[in-house]
Amino acid sequence: MTTDATASDKSAQSTPPSDGSSALTYADSGVDIEAGDRMVGMIQQMMRRTHGPRVIDIPGGFANMFRLDYNEKLFRRNFKDPVLVACTDGVGTKVKLAIDMQVYDTVGIDCVAMSVNDLIVQGADPLMFLDYIAVNKLDPKMAADLVKGIAAGCETAGCALIGGETAEMSDLYKPGDFDLAGFCVGVVELERAIDPSRVEVGDIIIGLTSDGLHSNGFSLVRKIIENANLNLNDVVDELNTDSKAKDKTLGEHLLTPTRIYTKPIVHLLRQYTVKKVVSGMAHITGGGLPGNVNRALSNDMDAVIDLSAWKPQPIFDYLQSLGGIDRDEMFRVFNMGIGYVLIVRPTFANSIMNHLNKDGEQAIELGRIVKGSGNVHLEQSNVPS
Amino acid sequence: MTTDATASDKSAQSTPPSDGSSALTYADSGVDIEAGDRMVGMIQQMMRRTHGPRVIDIPGGFANMFRLDYNEKLFRRNFKDPVLVACTDGVGTKVKLAIDMQVYDTVGIDCVAMSVNDLIVQGADPLMFLDYIAVNKLDPKMAADLVKGIAAGCETAGCALIGGETAEMSDLYKPGDFDLAGFCVGVVELERAIDPSRVEVGDIIIGLTSDGLHSNGFSLVRKIIENANLNLNDVVDELNTDSKAKDKTLGEHLLTPTRIYTKPIVHLLRQYTVKKVVSGMAHITGGGLPGNVNRALSNDMDAVIDLSAWKPQPIFDYLQSLGGIDRDEMFRVFNMGIGYVLIVRPTFANSIMNHLNKDGEQAIELGRIVKGSGNVHLEQSNVPS
Repeated sequence: MTTDATASDKSAQSTPPSDGSSALTYADSGVDIEAGDRMVGMIQQMMRRTHGPRVIDIPGGFANMFRLDYNEKLFRRNFKDPVLVACTDGVGTKVKLAIDMQVYDTVGIDCVAMSVNDLIVQGADPLMFLDYIAVNKLDPKMAADLVKGIAAGCETAGCALIGGETAEMSDLYKPGDFDLAGFCVGVVELERAIDPSRVEVGDIIIGLTSDGLHSNGFSLVRKIIENANLNLNDVVDELNTDSKAKDKTLGEHLLTPTRIYTKPIVHLLRQYTVKKVVSGMAHITGGGLPGNVNRALSNDMDAVIDLSAWKPQPIFDYLQSLGGIDRDEMFRVFNMGIGYVLIVRPTFANSIMNHLNKDGEQAIELGRIVKGSGNVHLEQSNVPS
Repeated sequence: MTTDATASDKSAQSTPPSDGSSALTYADSGVDIEAGDRMVGMIQQMMRRTHGPRVIDIPGGFANMFRLDYNEKLFRRNFKDPVLVACTDGVGTKVKLAIDMQVYDTVGIDCVAMSVNDLIVQGADPLMFLDYIAVNKLDPKMAADLVKGIAAGCETAGCALIGGETAEMSDLYKPGDFDLAGFCVGVVELERAIDPSRVEVGDIIIGLTSDGLHSNGFSLVRKIIENANLNLNDVVDELNTDSKAKDKTLGEHLLTPTRIYTKPIVHLLRQYTVKKVVSGMAHITGGGLPGNVNRALSNDMDAVIDLSAWKPQPIFDYLQSLGGIDRDEMFRVFNMGIGYVLIVRPTFANSIMNHLNKDGEQAIELGRIVKGSGNVHLEQSNVPS
């Protein structure tokens, strides 16, 4: 018996339809399905746009390679004691909203944002990203749109999309459904890694505004929308306060991708290489401000946040009144307009805020660190609750 | 209004049941559900067993840290030009079999094996691993069993399980269902990275035996079992050739975890640090021998593999005859008894095989590299097909 395998068998895509568990590695080429071919071509192009000279192309490779360039100047300086920082996250049930609306690129951005925003909390520069996409059946357009978003997110985050896996599992996922997870690796100089013990009483809490809901609380959001019998294609006037986006639908508001904070944060940390002016940071995800800012605190201090310092976007008020949700509950489930928090030395608070604003962020002084027991207090200074 | 968040809000686990999209990061502590508490405790213990001194504990951290120890001797030597190698993979529909049998630890091992076996193909030493688990509803016992397998796999592979994400998504996964993906990062010295251009005509192809099906072709496997109306708890005599496992059920045979080849391969590559005696490698997954060995070849050579060099385990014959599957098809879907392939210089073939056998592998000379066009030929030298 002789079995010839040609280059077109290279990808497991060529596994016959009788076995639905095919898998496609981006780095593979030569898929024998025309649509798959087009998808791989599109995906490779999108990936390459995120590649710097440190990504090594390996045709047919089983894994993906990224030079640390230790002999060269990595990020314009060398590391004395480099520490790899890694994390993984998914997009949660926001994917169900994307599935309902058949819009796939925005959750690709979310997938990157959820990981890279966690990574920079430790003071790290993101280096590379990989994704895992699981689908019922491979729809090349859908997969390409997902990767389009992932690649766009990686460009914004300044990291290389070096690989990924797309798995077809018709027994696990319903037709049209997919799941999405991301993995990110970065690097930080050991003595510059952020550490909760650095936060001191008197430190100032700075918030960076979010771009709406980001990627948390979507099971609740979907229940609210469902109970209110609303259509995702509805145009809700009270949400369209921006005169340039008068026709934005409810679904489009909900799908707004998570803001990626890596570049302003990485810039800021490089700006203050000698003095450690940033004592702590937090990415505001599930758990909201109270459930994430506390992770930056040691057990002998509290964070006091003044709720009158900013106004959450209309989407939060809208969902709260639509669903009859308690205000405290809103703050525990959603970011309520603040997507990222920095805790900084008081003498540098203004210059840090200026720096962040110049970098395109909206930095807001939220409050300060007091003696306590590791808790976060949300206080309304000038309006009765 | 004042909202107090205690340390027990730390994990998104505490997101109320009204919002099903909760997520738990292993590094989190202080989950306010007792069962969750127990799970986190169990998981942390299992993770720590995989940690060497290079893993940095960061309580409440948003990401996970791993020292490169560049100033020390990394793996007893320094890297001149270290390259990070990363890959991601899932377990495919083998998870459905685990779900049917309610056995979760073995697919945890599979999850690690699928990534680390890909990683070592590039010549890399695995450093760290993260997992993504998505479930309908968090069952602490199930999640702990999954992580138990993942941690065991990481111990075998010699890499640190430094983090992971467990996402509850009741809208996406059916009750009892879960999906599982892994992500691995390793390091290789640039000039020692495996590269297809190194393979030469005359090189010897060595195969390492598999532990059965590994993690591919399970949609087909499940269809065969279903069509034949078999029960996973059946004891099939022809499969129990090992006298020590006479009562092993069909399901247990199918769930046998993927063999992890990292330690013998890493040892071997360290043994031959000066001479590049290994010219190419391949992890035999979806696509089988023809669809993976070709990835190690350049376009001007073929691999000729002699099928009489080894006998696939009984499980392959059993599935083939049960499903009436074509022999060629079997070789394209399954590993057919060979889980990992090395292509080596002919003068070193014997010493390499001795080395691998001493390290607990069963190394088999499968064939050799000839002039050609990048194809793999499976030939039966002494038995008619």
